[in-house]
Amino acid sequence: MSWIVREEGFDPKRITNHGSKFMTGNGYMGCRGTLDEFSKEQLTAVTLAGVYDQVGTKWREPVNAPNGLRTRLYADGAELNVLSASVEKHVQELDIARGIHSRETVYLTGSGARITFRSERFVSMDQLHLIVNRFSVHSDKDISLTLETGIDGAVWDINGPHLKETQYASHEGILTAAASTQELGIRVVVAECLEGPQAGDQEIVASENGIVQRIQLSLQAGAPQEWVKYVSVYTSLDEVGDALAAALFGSRQAQAAGYESLLKAHEEIWEQHWALSDVVIEGDDEAQLALRYSIYQLLIIAPAGSEKVSIPARGLSGQVYKGAVFWDTEMFMLPFFLYTQPQVARNIMLYRKHTLDGARRKAAEYGFGGAYYAWESQDSGDDACTLFNITDVFTGRPMRTYFRDKQIHISCDVAHGIWEYYKLTGDTRFLLDGGAEVIWECARFLYSYACYYPLKERYELLDVTGPDEYHERVHNNAFTNYMARHTLRMAVRMMDELAEQAPALHAELTRQPKGVPGMNEIREIAERLYVPEPDEHTAVIEQFDRYHQLEDISLQELKSRILQSNEYLGGGNGVATTTQIIKQADVVLLMHLFKDEFAPAIKKANWEFYEPRTEHGSSLSPCVYALVASDIGMPDWAYPYFKRTATIDLTGDSKQYVGDLYIGGTHPAANGGAWMAAVLGFGGLQADEKEVRLNPSLPTAWSALAFKIHVRGHAFDIRITKEDVLVTSLAADGPEQAFRIQGSAVSVSPGQTAMFSLNGRVSAGS
Amino acid sequence: MSWIVREEGFDPKRITNHGSKFMTGNGYMGCRGTLDEFSKEQLTAVTLAGVYDQVGTKWREPVNAPNGLRTRLYADGAELNVLSASVEKHVQELDIARGIHSRETVYLTGSGARITFRSERFVSMDQLHLIVNRFSVHSDKDISLTLETGIDGAVWDINGPHLKETQYASHEGILTAAASTQELGIRVVVAECLEGPQAGDQEIVASENGIVQRIQLSLQAGAPQEWVKYVSVYTSLDEVGDALAAALFGSRQAQAAGYESLLKAHEEIWEQHWALSDVVIEGDDEAQLALRYSIYQLLIIAPAGSEKVSIPARGLSGQVYKGAVFWDTEMFMLPFFLYTQPQVARNIMLYRKHTLDGARRKAAEYGFGGAYYAWESQDSGDDACTLFNITDVFTGRPMRTYFRDKQIHISCDVAHGIWEYYKLTGDTRFLLDGGAEVIWECARFLYSYACYYPLKERYELLDVTGPDEYHERVHNNAFTNYMARHTLRMAVRMMDELAEQAPALHAELTRQPKGVPGMNEIREIAERLYVPEPDEHTAVIEQFDRYHQLEDISLQELKSRILQSNEYLGGGNGVATTTQIIKQADVVLLMHLFKDEFAPAIKKANWEFYEPRTEHGSSLSPCVYALVASDIGMPDWAYPYFKRTATIDLTGDSKQYVGDLYIGGTHPAANGGAWMAAVLGFGGLQADEKEVRLNPSLPTAWSALAFKIHVRGHAFDIRITKEDVLVTSLAADGPEQAFRIQGSAVSVSPGQTAMFSLNGRVSAGS
Repeated sequence: MSWIVREEGFDPKRITNHGSKFMTGNGYMGCRGTLDEFSKEQLTAVTLAGVYDQVGTKWREPVNAPNGLRTRLYADGAELNVLSASVEKHVQELDIARGIHSRETVYLTGSGARITFRSERFVSMDQLHLIVNRFSVHSDKDISLTLETGIDGAVWDINGPHLKETQYASHEGILTAAASTQELGIRVVVAECLEGPQAGDQEIVASENGIVQRIQLSLQAGAPQEWVKYVSVYTSLDEVGDALAAALFGSRQAQAAGYESLLKAHEEIWEQHWALSDVVIEGDDEAQLALRYSIYQLLIIAPAGSEKVSIPARGLSGQVYKGAVFWDTEMFMLPFFLYTQPQVARNIMLYRKHTLDGARRKAAEYGFGGAYYAWESQDSGDDACTLFNITDVFTGRPMRTYFRDKQIHISCDVAHGIWEYYKLTGDTRFLLDGGAEVIWECARFLYSYACYYPLKERYELLDVTGPDEYHERVHNNAFTNYMARHTLRMAVRMMDELAEQAPALHAELTRQPKGVPGMNEIREIAERLYVPEPDEHTAVIEQFDRYHQLEDISLQELKSRILQSNEYLGGGNGVATTTQIIKQADVVLLMHLFKDEFAPAIKKANWEFYEPRTEHGSSLSPCVYALVASDIGMPDWAYPYFKRTATIDLTGDSKQYVGDLYIGGTHPAANGGAWMAAVLGFGGLQADEKEVRLNPSLPTAWSALAFKIHVRGHAFDIRITKEDVLVTSLAADGPEQAFRIQGSAVSVSPGQTAMFSLNGRVSAGS
Repeated sequence: MSWIVREEGFDPKRITNHGSKFMTGNGYMGCRGTLDEFSKEQLTAVTLAGVYDQVGTKWREPVNAPNGLRTRLYADGAELNVLSASVEKHVQELDIARGIHSRETVYLTGSGARITFRSERFVSMDQLHLIVNRFSVHSDKDISLTLETGIDGAVWDINGPHLKETQYASHEGILTAAASTQELGIRVVVAECLEGPQAGDQEIVASENGIVQRIQLSLQAGAPQEWVKYVSVYTSLDEVGDALAAALFGSRQAQAAGYESLLKAHEEIWEQHWALSDVVIEGDDEAQLALRYSIYQLLIIAPAGSEKVSIPARGLSGQVYKGAVFWDTEMFMLPFFLYTQPQVARNIMLYRKHTLDGARRKAAEYGFGGAYYAWESQDSGDDACTLFNITDVFTGRPMRTYFRDKQIHISCDVAHGIWEYYKLTGDTRFLLDGGAEVIWECARFLYSYACYYPLKERYELLDVTGPDEYHERVHNNAFTNYMARHTLRMAVRMMDELAEQAPALHAELTRQPKGVPGMNEIREIAERLYVPEPDEHTAVIEQFDRYHQLEDISLQELKSRILQSNEYLGGGNGVATTTQIIKQADVVLLMHLFKDEFAPAIKKANWEFYEPRTEHGSSLSPCVYALVASDIGMPDWAYPYFKRTATIDLTGDSKQYVGDLYIGGTHPAANGGAWMAAVLGFGGLQADEKEVRLNPSLPTAWSALAFKIHVRGHAFDIRITKEDVLVTSLAADGPEQAFRIQGSAVSVSPGQTAMFSLNGRVSAGS
């Protein structure tokens, strides 16, 4: 029960939402949960990770491949299509345990036949270029059907068309579509083998919009017909030589292997994934499904196969947000991978190494040194974020926003991600191979950005935008300044270590041409960067200079001022801009990230101050309130925020438009946030190079929470109840691992189980 | 001919414009050029200099006194009022030589009588509290009229009502109105004596809106009736004890003196004013009238009688712009007074000394040290500028603007004004009595605002707004940075001089508590403040960091994007904000102020670059383009800009609304700009403590330009033709004065005339 997402009945208003909700994918590509008969109007998409294209001066965005899944049936001259036919029953289902999308629809034809159509597909976790789709159809009366199946070349594009010169062909019965992207001429090829059905007349028809086979099926009452499509997708970025040949070979080989064998290999990998990543909640089935579904969404977009792509803000659910990688990845998705699949975390962070030059270009463009990472990063690391990201609903004019220019915390977030990866894995090689350079370049960027006030004897960061994007261009945003200090301090510490351990690299990085900061400068700013302290009376940290001078109104009052539902609340004239209402967790995120630096009373004071002022206009926000509420021992304050985060892609209740900009799709940062809220929040998990800490705080309804973690190459099973915590080492050998549970130190040896009673006693057993 | 402004006929659409155009005043009060029968609907106003009031949280603004000029006539039961009666002829006139407003209207009554009504009034230059108004009426038939004359207490207020508890009374025939302001309880009193006419029945009627006498006049055909009103205005700020007693005494004394005697005293002062300030243009009557009219406007608002008020941006023409003093005064009005009436210039600059504490409060409010002068300064020097100065026409919402927060150049402008005053007058006393403290505090403010970049070894000024207010919150605005460096350098120079000459004051000013910059710091920033240099290829100075990255469109293209005629072009979402179109002279103003620092080719390149990009959305802008065009030897480029500036209050063609905010009224900065364009521009006058420079550049149409200047206590007559320059010292004794005419040095002794031929020869005669 807790592994199936299911919708009965067909509601045309939910097509877009279901496309995201029923997503499948494997990190190489994402396949929207649309139905077999759908076309681009229903937002069909096979979105390719890391393949981008720009048409003219329009937004650069990911490329959707021609849709090899297109399948239509006709009876009595009419199409059997949920959009137009008489539908007696319709079910759409996603098996998140195995990554299988299925649908079953019962149609009534004009001649009174009842036809049941089933389709089941998976994007292979085993063979990353492969989608397999099995169909069956049966009728309660003898009937003749036409099956039309092939490749739909009319691709859904937001700022396209991205594919040009598409050529369709049939190679010994294998249909192919081969096109090139407009900007870089990347070849995109789809090939598909059809196996079965028992064919009558058969013809192949190619048009400018695709290539299909038309097959006459004579259906006898009660006797189903079945067929399978093996769809193979390659691009010239795959470095396989001829992409067309590779695709043809791939689909042919897949057919040779056969459906069952492919499914088995696929299921095995899913099984491994869940073995590593599942989180069990006892006592709350709804939360259990929502959390597993969140994890599922992360698993289908994880770049397990490439270190040159990361995870975009809308995963692989289409072209929304330009398929760009934001801070979302490091701050909200990375923890899940870090603790459960460190190899994926490594790929995600290597992406930042590969895009370092793009970050250097951005810094130079603005007159700074070092690396200023793109707010919206694509393949090259150059910033895809435009200066006019939103349209003013009142005038229809593009609105100048400062996402691109001023969110300097992105470089801190990247550095933080690398450091977290290093701390938890001890992967020194990673640092030496580029991680250190990234951190050092981010520190240099911060130095060049910061300005110094000699009489105050401190550096400040002026004119930035923090996580709360409703307040652009502020001075000394607390989140940014703490993150910057953190980055600078880790750079100093890291370089001091490198000086000992890798003097050549240290010397290379700290070479100091005129105008470039060296060790002395970074050390100084790390000591003297101003960070806003909690107020001595209220304990509140002011979000930025003069935030407290803004109008202090309720969220309700703010909403009453909204004139048009899609109007942007930030920007130059937004209704939130001049008030204390914030878009998302900002200071409270700081409380989470630096939880050891702030006393519980300070965390509580800030939570209580900012919570009523937060509009949660970003899907990144609720999980942070959940995390900090758990941390201060208020899990039932956290719970609704956890639920909101974990169900975002199930309910589809998130914001769909800002101005006239469509921002729907999946929400991997919220998916990651759900995992964080459960494991880091309720589980109270925290780890560094020295020890793993657990300070659990389960919500009332939960009787147990169980999950697995990987720390420095070793796996542990953790099971938390209201009474105790059970830690089991899954390692066969190796060193002991230090744990600290509710403040008490426990050492766990390979193979050992430690039990810690939450009233204070530790016992270790086998 | 060149002294009379005259309009024939009555056009109700021009009532508001004429109210400004026909203004009279004497620096203590301004009297709008409205007609005798008008009331607040027609924007009657007697605006009191330096008297401000705030109602609740509405804008603080100047107080208008009850209108003692209110006079109405009735014939055959109907009012003789240009708004409603049958008007055969109507003339309104302003004699700018003598500051006399008059009107003559010929009415046709219902019974067919032709009644001629004349009114002539002046706001006495001799007795600052006095307005005198003489009337005559005659008819071509015997007729009985009712005269209703008194004090109109229904005052025009924008953000009022400012007067409360108005009490009306008659004291032995003198009518009085006495009220209090809401905020500070300032008493405002008006008293008026009526002399004549030959009265029939007479009654006095007081209501909540005023007090009037109703008098029956029996008019015999051809026999005029005459009467005079002596209106006296006092407030409790006048420090005369009982304001009511003072007003009563004033009007009674005036009546005793009589109309002719008062007029004569008034005219004598006007004669003196013109003797000091007139500028003669030969060959261009239109320009002559426009320039004299501009000078007239300055003379009627000059604070000759008080060092505690300065000149607001709309003079004394009502409550527009909150009656606040902007940078306009120092930068656009001060030069006129400095060269022609240094005593008024002294008062204007003393106002800044008196408001220094307000400037300190503003600096402290924003977390800075020193003195941050108010963008909109009223009596206390606290900033009257609101954070929401404009209404968004598309949403009706208040729009956040940064006039108040970010125009730090205001402190530089104030310091510059003081230094200019000191340079030209040699008035050391002024420096010792507060001028030095103001400059020093402005320098300290700049130090606290500036931030330092250690590797660049320079200070920068981030997040400011320059004169071009369409681009708010920019970094390193060239104008601001040059002005700041100028301020810092003059502070250093001045303090070095004080160290020798006034060591006690020097020691007091440079006391240095922790966190406050002293001599070392100011000296360092004066050396290391970054100023943007002309581009080595184009010679253009970039207006601020990244200005060149803005969209480069034509003014025409910009205007085609305007959706609503009153929409604000700047602010967060304005159409100009993201383009290179600027509101007003910014870099070009720099070229004027620092004309000796830039080669002619640089000035020309910047003029040519910025001129097509300037929208002239401020009345301060055209005169600057005139000044720099003259300076680079292109007087015919300058001429249209001079004309536009000099005629602004004659044509009434200026912007009347921004958003829904009325910004009409007079334009003293443009009036001052017209004088500057003529004398400093075409005349090429420039002076400092060492010498007076003249680099004339007359427009084609002008055959001669003649004016008088005062330098260090001595007056000179200057007469410039196309062929030569004649300088006559009007001093009886004293030192020689050094002149430099077209680069050649000439020394002029008291009483001497020097003639300089513009083809190069100097000869001195008696």
